[in-house]
Parts: sequence; structure tokens; C-alpha cells
Amino acid sequence: MNFYIGYLFAEAVKHILQKNGIPTSDIDLIGSHGQTIHHYPFLIIPCGETTGIGEPAVIAHETGIPTIADFRVADMAAGGQGAPLVAYPDYLLFHDSVKTMGLLNIGGIANITVLPANGSFDSVSAADTGPGNMCIDAVVSEITDGRERYDQAGQRAAQGTPHQPLIDEWLNHPFFQLTPPKTTGREMFGHTLAMECLAACRKHSLSDNDSIATLTELTVQTIALYISQFVPEKNPIDTLYVSGGGVHNQTVMQRLNEALVGTAVEPVDNSGISADAKEAIAFAILANESLHGQAGNLPSATGASMRKILGKFVCP
Amino acid sequence: MNFYIGYLFAEAVKHILQKNGIPTSDIDLIGSHGQTIHHYPFLIIPCGETTGIGEPAVIAHETGIPTIADFRVADMAAGGQGAPLVAYPDYLLFHDSVKTMGLLNIGGIANITVLPANGSFDSVSAADTGPGNMCIDAVVSEITDGRERYDQAGQRAAQGTPHQPLIDEWLNHPFFQLTPPKTTGREMFGHTLAMECLAACRKHSLSDNDSIATLTELTVQTIALYISQFVPEKNPIDTLYVSGGGVHNQTVMQRLNEALVGTAVEPVDNSGISADAKEAIAFAILANESLHGQAGNLPSATGASMRKILGKFVCP
Repeated sequence: MNFYIGYLFAEAVKHILQKNGIPTSDIDLIGSHGQTIHHYPFLIIPCGETTGIGEPAVIAHETGIPTIADFRVADMAAGGQGAPLVAYPDYLLFHDSVKTMGLLNIGGIANITVLPANGSFDSVSAADTGPGNMCIDAVVSEITDGRERYDQAGQRAAQGTPHQPLIDEWLNHPFFQLTPPKTTGREMFGHTLAMECLAACRKHSLSDNDSIATLTELTVQTIALYISQFVPEKNPIDTLYVSGGGVHNQTVMQRLNEALVGTAVEPVDNSGISADAKEAIAFAILANESLHGQAGNLPSATGASMRKILGKFVCP
Repeated sequence: MNFYIGYLFAEAVKHILQKNGIPTSDIDLIGSHGQTIHHYPFLIIPCGETTGIGEPAVIAHETGIPTIADFRVADMAAGGQGAPLVAYPDYLLFHDSVKTMGLLNIGGIANITVLPANGSFDSVSAADTGPGNMCIDAVVSEITDGRERYDQAGQRAAQGTPHQPLIDEWLNHPFFQLTPPKTTGREMFGHTLAMECLAACRKHSLSDNDSIATLTELTVQTIALYISQFVPEKNPIDTLYVSGGGVHNQTVMQRLNEALVGTAVEPVDNSGISADAKEAIAFAILANESLHGQAGNLPSATGASMRKILGKFVCP
């Protein structure tokens, strides 16, 4: 699959350039995040392992553009979690002299970067908060026999009622008690857990939409829990910019706004950066840093012992 | 395993430097071949896949030395087999204005590079010839219940008698009819095939040493077959330098000398380059070429559509 996904990525690059009338020669460098297919940071086993696919040699050859990829491994070699890697790009793009900023990406897993007002990058904290869309998507897909892949705009959750006792039970998961830096993945909050949650919902005779609402609320409450645990009350988040697929889930957005009193929860688009493009922009920044011999990780976010130049450089 | 093997490789580097009193600061660059754990070139499936483990980010971090690794993929991205990659270093080290030179490495798989006298690198041909030690080792290990891992110095083979009808049968394997460039691996000539061969030997009531002699002779005859098929009779190999574990198998060496009339079959050590170090030297050369933006593959050897700068560069 590594080569095959590489070809798909290369096709995507060529397609987007053509669609936007950008000549390949205008692109100096590709930063490819890759598709992480397993990720066991040191948190779980003594010697970390991570695998991202989407062969950069294929991307570089097919596009003719130098490519940097596989950003996690250097951070992990230095004892870090290999994630979240967006902390440093988030700092470069969003830190503010007056406001404390939060950047929340709700992908399969949700992760947050907190940038204290007028802080240096040592002050940045970042972590995975827990499940993002992963469990919701899995349950929607299961309930609809695969006809729906996600809860569009959060409509099903809006029509359901979350079952708080189950959420309280799930919040006992040890991950939510860990202090940051911490990362997680599909191994912990993937399909298996989602199916266990769905089974628990059904045991409590919840309707389909109530089940989806309950898992949606789990995502919201784990984010709120992280913030209440690890963001100092005296320096609360002024603006929380949300990106990732979750930004399109209106139930998630509305409930986050209700749960985070005093914080403006907004799509990151309001900052001028498209939610759908934010991760891509972050990895373009990381690739550029690496090309110039600049470190891209933040030990305060990943737990690494030192800053590292990230990624592997591949010639076209 | 990718990270774990990376730590072992880093330990090996540190150990060898310490043992030889070489300060780390004297080493500018590591070229790491990695351990290939699967290799499906385009020969077998439409979209190639190859996986080498021994994470270079770990090697670079642990040693403090920039590392280039994963040399096969760029060649495969250009439609090549990703092997044999030693062809170009072999050319740089061994090509001769008067003699036609052969370089035979007998590792798990055996591969040969042929350098016509006074030829350019377009004239170089290289290919895997078939099984090297892989089948012999597997059968020795099976026969001795794992007490012996290989046939030391070829002593068991020397005490046995090869069964030619079985060898003739095995030589019908389609790989031996393919024209170069061609590569193979453990998928084709690994443990499964070795066990089938052993079963066939036992069906013919061969003794243990006769079975080992038969598999040893298979290696010899597949090498000789390749040379008779693909090296022009009018320009025979003058000197065939042998490297890899097989050079220590005296039965293999003696039988190659007998089978290849007119060719001097010698350990590559006779050239001044240690057989045990030859592959390592080749990958140091390839890493150096890549660092200087020079291509490292030879399309005449790998079948790639073009020369490519190989490997992925990782900062320490």
C-alpha cells in the first residue's frame, strides 16, 4: 500500500495544481504528512513504532518535486511522542501578544494546541484530547450499514439526547487522566472501542440518534475536560479556532461553545486560514523548516528530549 | 521492529567506531541499506512494494551522524526493480580497461554484476541469479533442528553427492528463464521453497548431506546458468570476485571454479576489498553519491526508466 498511496498522493498534487493553473515549476517542495497506519509512541511500549504510508520517493518522482515526509520519526527517536507536530506551525501562525489562543483540530483524534498570550514557544502545550470523529464515524457507519460515513453537519446528534451516565463511565478511561504531552490513535479509540460504546448504548436502549449524540458529547466533554485539567484558570483560552472535519459538525461546535464559558469557539476559517487546509499548511511549514535546517518539533508538546529537524528528504 | 532494528544498527555503528578508536566526529555520513523484510518489484505485481527496516531517524539520532537510507524506493518509483543497487558501486570500484570483471555476491539471494572490459556504465548488466545461501541455510537448520544455522565452510555439501535430476527439475523454475534485469527475494526462494526441496530430496531417499549438496549445487548451477545465458561467449568474464557469506563455502567456491571454465573465481578479498565489507562499502559510496546529488542506480541493472538520486536524507 505504501507505493500505491504514494501514487494517489502524487495524483492529488498534480490534480490540484492543474485545477488551479499552477505550473509544477512554481512548487519548490512538498511536505507530505503521510497516512499514519499505526502509531505506538513510547507511552505504550518501551521502544516506539510508527508507520506512515504514501511513499515520498513515488510522490517526488511522479511530480518532479523534492519531497519531505515521515516527520514523526525524528521526534520519536529523541524520546518524543511523534505528535502533535502541528504545535510549532500553530505557534508560528497563531501566537498572539495579548490573547491566549487555542487551536483544536478535530480529525479522527482531536488534538489541541494552547498558546499562552505573549508566550515563547517553550510555553506552548499541545496534546491529543481523545477521540475526535473516529468513534462517531464508526458508529454512524455501523448504524446505517455503511450508507452514511459520518454524521453530516451533526444532524443526527442534534436529533438525539446524550446519555450522561455512559459518558461519565467512559471518561474514566485512563487516557483522560494522563498529563500532557500525550498522544493516542486508532489503536486506543478506534473501531473496537466504538463498537463497545455502541453495544453499551444499545444495552441502555438508546435510539440510534441518542447513541450518536452520546458519542458526539463524549468528544465535546473530553475536549472540555482536557482544557479544565490542563489550561490554567487564570489564563483561559480567549479564542479557540477549530479545524478538521469536526468543524463541520454543528452539534460539536455548538456544544463546545456552551461547554467552554468565556472562550470564543470559532472555525479557524475566521482567522483567514481554511479549516480544510490548516494541516496541509502546517506540514508545508514543517517541510520548509527542515529544508532550511530548522527544527520542527516542540518538546513541550511532544515530550522529546530536544528539538529536532524533522522528516526525510527525497530528491525527485 | 523498524525502530528496534534502528537501535541495533546504531549500536553496531557505535561499537565498531569504539573498537577501532575512530571518533564519531570523523564520520560525515552513514549509508544504511536497512534490512529488507519484503520486496515485490514490478515483476510480480503492477505496483511495486518494498519495505526495509532499521529506522534511519533512530540511527542518525543515536549516532549523531547524518544518515541516508531506503535506497531502493527511488529506483522503483522510476519503474526499476530496486535491485541490484551494487551495480554502480561495483562499476566505480572494479571496472577495468582490459579485463571483463564479474562481481558475485552470495548472500541469501545471489546477485552478479558483469562489467565488460573498457565498457561505459551503460554496458553494465546485473541481476539476481537465484538462491544464494537462503535455501542451503534453511535446509541445514531444519535437518539439525536449528543446531547449525549454515553449512560451515561447505563441509556437509562436500561430504554429500548432488542429485542432478532434482536440480534439472528445479532449474525449470520460471525465474531462471527471465532475461535480466531481474531480482528476486525470500518470497520466491525462501523457507517455503527450501522445505519443498528438502521434501523432494527425502522422497528420493537422499541423505542429509546429499540433500545439502543438492541445494548447494543448485546455487552453483543457477549462477553458471545465468552466465551461460546472459554473458556473451565472445567476451567472457576474466575474473569473478565473490563476496557475501557464500565466499566462505568452499564447496560453492570449488564448484564455481569447475563450472566456469576460463574464469578465475576468487574471493573479492584478493582485490584488496574484504568480502564481508563489500556491501557496506557499496552503500557508503551510494550515500556519498546521493549527498552530492549524483544518481546511484544503473537502469541497465535495475530496469528503471532513468538514473535516480537514491535514498532519504535524515538529519541527526
